[in-house]
Amino acid sequence: MLPNPIITLTTDFGYKDPFVGIMKGVILGINPFAKIVDITHGISPQNILEAAITIEMSFKSFPGKTIHIVVVDPGVGSARRPILVTTSHYYFIGPDNGVFSQIYKLKDETITVIQLTSDHYFLPNRSTTFHGRDIFAPVAGWLSKGIDSSKFGEKISDYRTISIPAPVISDENVIEGEVIYTDCFGNVTTNIKAELVDEILRKKITGRHKVLFRGREAPFKSHYAEADDEGLYSLINSFGYLELFVKNGSASSKFDIIVGEKVKLILN
Amino acid sequence: MLPNPIITLTTDFGYKDPFVGIMKGVILGINPFAKIVDITHGISPQNILEAAITIEMSFKSFPGKTIHIVVVDPGVGSARRPILVTTSHYYFIGPDNGVFSQIYKLKDETITVIQLTSDHYFLPNRSTTFHGRDIFAPVAGWLSKGIDSSKFGEKISDYRTISIPAPVISDENVIEGEVIYTDCFGNVTTNIKAELVDEILRKKITGRHKVLFRGREAPFKSHYAEADDEGLYSLINSFGYLELFVKNGSASSKFDIIVGEKVKLILN
Amino acid sequence: MLPNPIITLTTDFGYKDPFVGIMKGVILGINPFAKIVDITHGISPQNILEAAITIEMSFKSFPGKTIHIVVVDPGVGSARRPILVTTSHYYFIGPDNGVFSQIYKLKDETITVIQLTSDHYFLPNRSTTFHGRDIFAPVAGWLSKGIDSSKFGEKISDYRTISIPAPVISDENVIEGEVIYTDCFGNVTTNIKAELVDEILRKKITGRHKVLFRGREAPFKSHYAEADDEGLYSLINSFGYLELFVKNGSASSKFDIIVGEKVKLILN
Repeated sequence: MLPNPIITLTTDFGYKDPFVGIMKGVILGINPFAKIVDITHGISPQNILEAAITIEMSFKSFPGKTIHIVVVDPGVGSARRPILVTTSHYYFIGPDNGVFSQIYKLKDETITVIQLTSDHYFLPNRSTTFHGRDIFAPVAGWLSKGIDSSKFGEKISDYRTISIPAPVISDENVIEGEVIYTDCFGNVTTNIKAELVDEILRKKITGRHKVLFRGREAPFKSHYAEADDEGLYSLINSFGYLELFVKNGSASSKFDIIVGEKVKLILN
Repeated sequence: MLPNPIITLTTDFGYKDPFVGIMKGVILGINPFAKIVDITHGISPQNILEAAITIEMSFKSFPGKTIHIVVVDPGVGSARRPILVTTSHYYFIGPDNGVFSQIYKLKDETITVIQLTSDHYFLPNRSTTFHGRDIFAPVAGWLSKGIDSSKFGEKISDYRTISIPAPVISDENVIEGEVIYTDCFGNVTTNIKAELVDEILRKKITGRHKVLFRGREAPFKSHYAEADDEGLYSLINSFGYLELFVKNGSASSKFDIIVGEKVKLILN
Repeated sequence: MLPNPIITLTTDFGYKDPFVGIMKGVILGINPFAKIVDITHGISPQNILEAAITIEMSFKSFPGKTIHIVVVDPGVGSARRPILVTTSHYYFIGPDNGVFSQIYKLKDETITVIQLTSDHYFLPNRSTTFHGRDIFAPVAGWLSKGIDSSKFGEKISDYRTISIPAPVISDENVIEGEVIYTDCFGNVTTNIKAELVDEILRKKITGRHKVLFRGREAPFKSHYAEADDEGLYSLINSFGYLELFVKNGSASSKFDIIVGEKVKLILN
């Protein structure tokens, strides 16, 4: 049995219904020593891309052996498979719908994907609409008790991925990216990652560059309070991504920025 | 003392105020070993019916001996009594306003209702507006430490119930129910329970039947993704109730469905 | 090491993003035995006053030695200092932006404020935008393991406070206060504290007095259900403050009451 096993939950279940609490009850019924941590239940309904980005931002902040459950599952009850993904350091449990696409891309990690078929680890009489309760929670509970991951089913290699837009290097000094996430402050994350710029172009984002959005510059700052006024600014956020922001305000609301809009980074 | 005592919280306190956190502080001050689980704090303000349905959906997913606190309490501070309900397997703590009406109906459970009168188990100087902090949390804390339920007050038999609309069997093959709950996805739960149909009419809901809503059929499916388009469909949900849904969308928003609307099930 | 260390979180991070979950992962990576309790993550974005009032309402309900983290931090990444505040019974960790102003005013407590400078207790490679993850969570984790508070930095005395509006005693029998907080039910808290009235005027709020709002009386009641109709009423709330309310409704919505509006208490 893992000492102090941690199980995290990331879902689109929201905060009105009892679904998340119910999953916790199932887990604690199997392993009373599990520590359950909510990552978020505010994923937009059925938004697999948002869930994939959220778990990517989060998983590494937890100690090794943490079990991450992700339930954003529009195909629940259909032929889509329930899976357990193991990396060198973490476990991930959820539907095979691409929600773990960013995990599969990790470097220096050995990835194994197991289709959950050992239904004696599921709840009996499982429903077709709530596999969070009936499959994912109990499997996480048993896994946290030390059951070997190989016992839960068979390895598969044809697991599903979703395409997450990648930035395009249009010439040696220009990177074209796009908005992929908006946080609750209205800060807008793009898919341009600082380390990628460094790696590919051998140039660091240091301020000697321009960020363009809708043809206008969003001046680059080191932190939020450094902005001079309430216009649109940019910085590298705490996850290493280029972000657009408004000081003490919401960039997404003020400028009606939506996921998918283009952002250009010009290095000099 | 109960090993690994679990205390759950179901309230209409929302997520903006510190009220829930404060209750947890009180519990942990009494029993540092309590495991506290949020079921939901998103019950609509003062909606006793919604709370009664929510705790009914949830309590069984927790291990035996779990203590369920429910605080939806418009009468706080008035003559309404604080109570502890014990069943054969669970404890329930909250106001005597009908919030436990569905618990009282459980079959094969011995129900005892105790009016909480032993005020040495309450916080001193209790307020008239926050019994979650001053009565329910400390009583749960002490109960989780192993104090016998009989110590908290006296048995009562005139506890309050609210009427929860029941489906009507209008002829041998027709059941008329109504909408009782809408979840955050916009899925709409009715009060028609599959096992009840089976039990009363000796007919299983198998697909050889029709679900009618506002005079039109909502075709029956086994799971969400089976719907052919974005019209209104029906299925038996994970709690055994007939539910109306829209695939990848919100039935409640798209069709402006509200609690209380009628749904008809015609068996053949 | 503290037995059963409790760490609470109060932030404006909301419930959509993974930021809170990430902080918990960092804490548990340092101290797997920490009990983490959410006070609220629904503070209005960047609203330091609201956070100061919220932590004041909450901290005392937790057992001694509890570590309270508060992250409402518009100046993150700037010269504003991260601090650890110790009182005789509690610890507080957050930015030096006045969020602990009400803690500094506590009587009968020895207050020490330490600027967090020992960066070996921070995460390596810390960002300029997420000190909750990079500084406050790890410092709380280490503090909960028993590291002495003096190890985290140097004492300072020029810590920042914000002014929180105080009631004005305009003549011997009249107190003029204002609205400082609205809860999710729409109940409206003023800054007129019952014990202050008692102390200063040697008069208790007993019902022989008038509460005036916008020139009209808001009759005084002992609890919500005592109100006769759905007009505006007043009571002393569970934190000891004069509050305006509407029975089974929202005073703030019904009367469009906003923070800062004046309320008058006339004692007789």
